[in-house]
Amino acid sequence: MSVNAIHATDSIQDVSAMQQLVTYVESDLQKVQALMQDRMSSHVSLIPKLAGHIIMAGGKYFRALLTLATAKACGYQGDRHVELAACIEFIHNATLLHDDVIDESLRRRGVPSANAIWGDKASILVGDFLFSRAFELMVGDGSMEVLAILSRTASLLIEGEVQQLTLMHDTAMTQDDYLDIIRAKTARLFAASCEIGGVIAKSPSEQCQALANYGMNLGIAFQLVDDILDYSSDSETLGKDIGVDFREGKMTLPVIYAYDLGNAAEKKFWQRTIGECEQEEGDFSQALIYMQKHDVFSKTSKLAEEFVVKAQNSLAPVGTGMPWSLLDAVVASSIKRSY
Amino acid sequence: MSVNAIHATDSIQDVSAMQQLVTYVESDLQKVQALMQDRMSSHVSLIPKLAGHIIMAGGKYFRALLTLATAKACGYQGDRHVELAACIEFIHNATLLHDDVIDESLRRRGVPSANAIWGDKASILVGDFLFSRAFELMVGDGSMEVLAILSRTASLLIEGEVQQLTLMHDTAMTQDDYLDIIRAKTARLFAASCEIGGVIAKSPSEQCQALANYGMNLGIAFQLVDDILDYSSDSETLGKDIGVDFREGKMTLPVIYAYDLGNAAEKKFWQRTIGECEQEEGDFSQALIYMQKHDVFSKTSKLAEEFVVKAQNSLAPVGTGMPWSLLDAVVASSIKRSY
Repeated sequence: MSVNAIHATDSIQDVSAMQQLVTYVESDLQKVQALMQDRMSSHVSLIPKLAGHIIMAGGKYFRALLTLATAKACGYQGDRHVELAACIEFIHNATLLHDDVIDESLRRRGVPSANAIWGDKASILVGDFLFSRAFELMVGDGSMEVLAILSRTASLLIEGEVQQLTLMHDTAMTQDDYLDIIRAKTARLFAASCEIGGVIAKSPSEQCQALANYGMNLGIAFQLVDDILDYSSDSETLGKDIGVDFREGKMTLPVIYAYDLGNAAEKKFWQRTIGECEQEEGDFSQALIYMQKHDVFSKTSKLAEEFVVKAQNSLAPVGTGMPWSLLDAVVASSIKRSY
Repeated sequence: MSVNAIHATDSIQDVSAMQQLVTYVESDLQKVQALMQDRMSSHVSLIPKLAGHIIMAGGKYFRALLTLATAKACGYQGDRHVELAACIEFIHNATLLHDDVIDESLRRRGVPSANAIWGDKASILVGDFLFSRAFELMVGDGSMEVLAILSRTASLLIEGEVQQLTLMHDTAMTQDDYLDIIRAKTARLFAASCEIGGVIAKSPSEQCQALANYGMNLGIAFQLVDDILDYSSDSETLGKDIGVDFREGKMTLPVIYAYDLGNAAEKKFWQRTIGECEQEEGDFSQALIYMQKHDVFSKTSKLAEEFVVKAQNSLAPVGTGMPWSLLDAVVASSIKRSY
């Protein structure tokens, strides 16, 4: 069962919202891709090879799209949004490289992961390289306000990742703990991506804050769907392995719900497979059965929808009509994706 | 045989130069340590625990000392040198955390390495955290000139590490390749540490460049000694495992010399142990015998001395008398250390 399947009725319209977003900023997005290609170049040939592998493998560029679109929507004219979108994608891809090492993931975006091809050592260092190049890009932008937002976001993002690692197998994790973690590790970068569009357009501070809130709520919804897909998609559609969170024994919201709603035998199952990460063949299928029994995907999906509404409400005072209606549609479509 | 043993005659005087450097900036160094403690704090308790473990385990703080001393020597009055010294130490410690994961090192500064205690995943993420906090510190400093120096330095440092990884087992590596790598991965951060002291004191640009050159040459000499110590020290004195470079099959200058000067049988030995990283018991002892046969430690040490002279020559036009004579003595002492 994919999230798409849950929302089959309106998925076509929503996929088209994402496509419209790409169309809205298409020429800028091409500039972002060209700039990324340029800024990942190095006389050390492994760097552009490995970085190019992950960056050019067909990611969504969702964060870049948000910076480009919010800047354009706020009337920005110039090239800073291109540089900052590239910078944000570099930060994102740096974290993906390190995440794949940490999660021992072998596939990403439909192809073997960088660590599967070049090993952990190269992935760690090229991740560091992208991170440092991201900082060079933002220093090149020259705005202390933007530097403050992005350097703070990077710290909080990583703090969230460490917190997730710390609470990884903790079956006592609550929905609030979980939301704190995904706010930090995922949603803050979405928030920064949107806020920066307003900041460089010199929009009023309330408008920048509203855009940040929009991005934050969108990011939370996005991560909730990610955590559903890890159980409910198939690896062909998702472009990466499914069941990675389960195999790692990672507490995510579907597990929190299944644990909370489970009887004693089910709690024991989750305690063994997630809490102690002791797994046997057939455990993943069993996990899915327990999860479906308690309807945890619909519950998680429902929470995602609440954050979609929050995102839309955050955006409402900023503006109406195009392009704001497009950003409104995008947030709805973001939870109806299948990859 | 330790590098100290080679230079036993003048080691006491030189150790005292390093001690004098510490005394020269003692109160500022305490502020750096307090600031680092403060800036590694987090509600995620693993972060200060792991970061504190590596940072407070008794490192040399050599880079911080250089920033503090050059700033003071250039007449700087203020607190920016404290923040920037902490920032540089954060960058350095972030790379150490990642290096220990990459090198699979189990000891550092006389105690178990962070990865040995908390695992690779935590070390990767807390390394990322220190790196991002370093950027927050430099953004807090507020100078675009300093940001440009440090963000460029960080990129080049990591580029050097990737290059080292790429050429790791390449027995065709030349002395020039090796010097390129250590300039990038080690010496540039020393250069930046010294340059920044001049920059924040608003010293003339030739003086800042001279300080950068001093740091660069000092850094090269420092790394050359590091690479000797990995073969010639003992782990008790060094505070970390010896023979790590050999076990990893890492090409360093002592191996380059031993390979170049070796006969066919020796070349075959290096090809197997370093080139293919296929090692048997007794290989490390055999490596030391071949190295001593060709006197490679003295040769490497002699090259380090040449960079000491270059560092001293770089410093000469900047000033005479105290505190410049102290920085002059420090560079000489830096190659006569045993850890």
